[in-house]
Amino acid sequence: MANIFEVPQPDIDLIKKADQVRLASIKISQNKNKNRIKALNFMADYLEKNTNEILDANNEDYQRAEKKGISKALLSRLKLSKEKLNSGIEGVRKVGELTDPVNQVQIKRELSKGLVLERKTVPIGVLGVIFESRPDAVMQISSLAIRSGNGVILKGGSEANLTNTAIVNALKEGLNESGLDKNAICLLTSRKDSMSMLNLDKYINLIIPRGSNELVKFIQENTKIPVLGHADGICHLYIDIEANIEMALSVALDSKIQYPAACNAIETLLVHKDIAPAFLEMAIPLFNSNDVKLIGDKRSVELGLKYEASIEDWQTEYLDLILSIKIVDDLEEAITHVQKYSSKHTDGIITENLGTANKFMNVVDSAGVFHNCSTRFADGFRYGFGAEVGISTQTLPPRGPVGLEGLVTYKYFLKGNGNIVDDFSSGKAIYTHKDF
Amino acid sequence: MANIFEVPQPDIDLIKKADQVRLASIKISQNKNKNRIKALNFMADYLEKNTNEILDANNEDYQRAEKKGISKALLSRLKLSKEKLNSGIEGVRKVGELTDPVNQVQIKRELSKGLVLERKTVPIGVLGVIFESRPDAVMQISSLAIRSGNGVILKGGSEANLTNTAIVNALKEGLNESGLDKNAICLLTSRKDSMSMLNLDKYINLIIPRGSNELVKFIQENTKIPVLGHADGICHLYIDIEANIEMALSVALDSKIQYPAACNAIETLLVHKDIAPAFLEMAIPLFNSNDVKLIGDKRSVELGLKYEASIEDWQTEYLDLILSIKIVDDLEEAITHVQKYSSKHTDGIITENLGTANKFMNVVDSAGVFHNCSTRFADGFRYGFGAEVGISTQTLPPRGPVGLEGLVTYKYFLKGNGNIVDDFSSGKAIYTHKDF
Repeated sequence: MANIFEVPQPDIDLIKKADQVRLASIKISQNKNKNRIKALNFMADYLEKNTNEILDANNEDYQRAEKKGISKALLSRLKLSKEKLNSGIEGVRKVGELTDPVNQVQIKRELSKGLVLERKTVPIGVLGVIFESRPDAVMQISSLAIRSGNGVILKGGSEANLTNTAIVNALKEGLNESGLDKNAICLLTSRKDSMSMLNLDKYINLIIPRGSNELVKFIQENTKIPVLGHADGICHLYIDIEANIEMALSVALDSKIQYPAACNAIETLLVHKDIAPAFLEMAIPLFNSNDVKLIGDKRSVELGLKYEASIEDWQTEYLDLILSIKIVDDLEEAITHVQKYSSKHTDGIITENLGTANKFMNVVDSAGVFHNCSTRFADGFRYGFGAEVGISTQTLPPRGPVGLEGLVTYKYFLKGNGNIVDDFSSGKAIYTHKDF
Repeated sequence: MANIFEVPQPDIDLIKKADQVRLASIKISQNKNKNRIKALNFMADYLEKNTNEILDANNEDYQRAEKKGISKALLSRLKLSKEKLNSGIEGVRKVGELTDPVNQVQIKRELSKGLVLERKTVPIGVLGVIFESRPDAVMQISSLAIRSGNGVILKGGSEANLTNTAIVNALKEGLNESGLDKNAICLLTSRKDSMSMLNLDKYINLIIPRGSNELVKFIQENTKIPVLGHADGICHLYIDIEANIEMALSVALDSKIQYPAACNAIETLLVHKDIAPAFLEMAIPLFNSNDVKLIGDKRSVELGLKYEASIEDWQTEYLDLILSIKIVDDLEEAITHVQKYSSKHTDGIITENLGTANKFMNVVDSAGVFHNCSTRFADGFRYGFGAEVGISTQTLPPRGPVGLEGLVTYKYFLKGNGNIVDDFSSGKAIYTHKDF
């Protein structure tokens, strides 16, 4: 599948490392909840103990990056202050407080006398995490991996190599002290390794990319391993004819400006033609005073917008203080626009009409369909998952914001006392299919 | 990803058809449970009404295939007797009796005052089903698709084109009479279309292949659409030193011969070295008298097996009355062999020692891990799902035998009264995260 010129085959060293993680992940998966929690606490302890080493390493990374002339945005993400580190350590301990995602019984059923089926959640195995700059991601994702009984292979941005190495060393010391296999966490530092990771489909069960849309898209297109993540967040908000205008203004503003670089911020506002004049009369000055550039279709330009939109605007995730506006004839046109351009992340409607809201929410096929609230709520923490592993825009589960449940799968355990299928064909035995 | 020389891009006609199915699938997805059940009954009625047309079409397909010199096995799968058709029709009605997989509430939670999150199951959208010969599959998969609120694009083997067309015509008449959009079921009949289907990733949400391992492997490697299915079924049974020998013989025999062409039949028997002499002394004549060819490693040849196995034997799904046998030193060696060669479908152990059984079941990473029972139980009907959409050997869900739940996904519905995220940053609102 992958282009071998871009994605090299893993070398023997990498395969050996990956196999160590695989073996360690099997051991971790057998550990009881309390041991995994204990491991997290030791990991946090060692991060505390090694605070100076970690901050020094980060300092060095930062100075090198500065010399190289790396962008300010990247530099600020690279910087690990003592406060950021402490809050990361706190986060590691907090992951221990989450409900154990492993060993949850989903099905328990007698198939026949003496033959009992159980479906229980189990760790996935080995996670491959590829992230850019932010070194705090190492602590977060490693603790989520161990919490859920998985091994993890990490590859961060090379400009943070020293920091990441110092953090991973501390995490491994903690694992080791708690009695778990320290090979369950592995950091790769070369670009070649991070590329050939994509070909480790025999060792890695799930890839979690954390970074730019381009990174995610590249990974999705160059690996056979399942990828948890999304490339685009093109979210819409539709202001219906029966919207409460005040609410519409407040929710639209929040959905756009509360954190414009987030994937759950809206890029396009769809406005019913009959409410458009009144709505835009108030929306234009409101967005202007919040430095939001408005780009609209012909009809909204007629109603006062300065910039006319091209087709590309409907397909663009601005991630910035820019909003495209389109005036639609009715609900149908709004839905058709959403179906065509939505990245299936989150799309919302503002209306006082419950029937209209339900129609929109049922027909729009996005991970999140929202009524009378900001699209910015589409988030694992806000949903109450306690952690967010990623947001998925694929149709099949896991979909939308994914908590710890995205790091486990399930297995069928069938226990009998010599039961054979032939006895059911011959009539000697019958299926009872009784749930416990 | 796909090789464009092998997998052509869909032409305009196919895209138009696929878009019709997509639009129809949205309508079907909005239908209440009782309407979908009504549709199934009308579909069954029209199959009954059109019995003569369908059987005549099958007769013609059969005669053409016979003239072409198609293999007997294929001819027998192609043949649709009146009994087979009737049982297919009965099957369509039975799908109506299954629990509605749609609209199941998985999460219902107050995030904050007046802000309620619901996660509900919804249809996937459009299924793409590619199957070989057996025309009864058309009835089964179409009824499962409609039951779960999906649209379906079908492509069967060309030798069954007339039969499949006659069946699909009846199904569409039934859909239409029940008031649902008949475009929800679409049959493709040309080979070119079946190939370019794999590139319809904008229209098809899930591919379900039904056919040979080669077909499944080809599809998995040539589409970006998720594939529900598995290429191999290399299942193992391990006879532990503490096995009840009589039980071990009975379960091993059932796991091999009850239906050797099934994916859940075992291909390899692993036997603890200390029980091997006693076990093989009885197993060899037993398997011989059931026409099973035994191929073994050196040690088992020393104990009386005639044929010595090569490495390839451990990786081969015979789908036939052939069984490979390997003698292992202990549980660890058995597990290591399974981890290396299992296709992660189903692997079992026979032992009276519960600790040993648990170790095996916990460490072996297969969809099904069985203790003291036949691997042949790995099946959606036997698990009590009422239907089997396919068996998945991937690690992530859906895993193992997949019932109707494999044809639905979920969506997050968030309803508020103007809630904005900024109020939580400013402290004006707080998260309550209370489950209903």
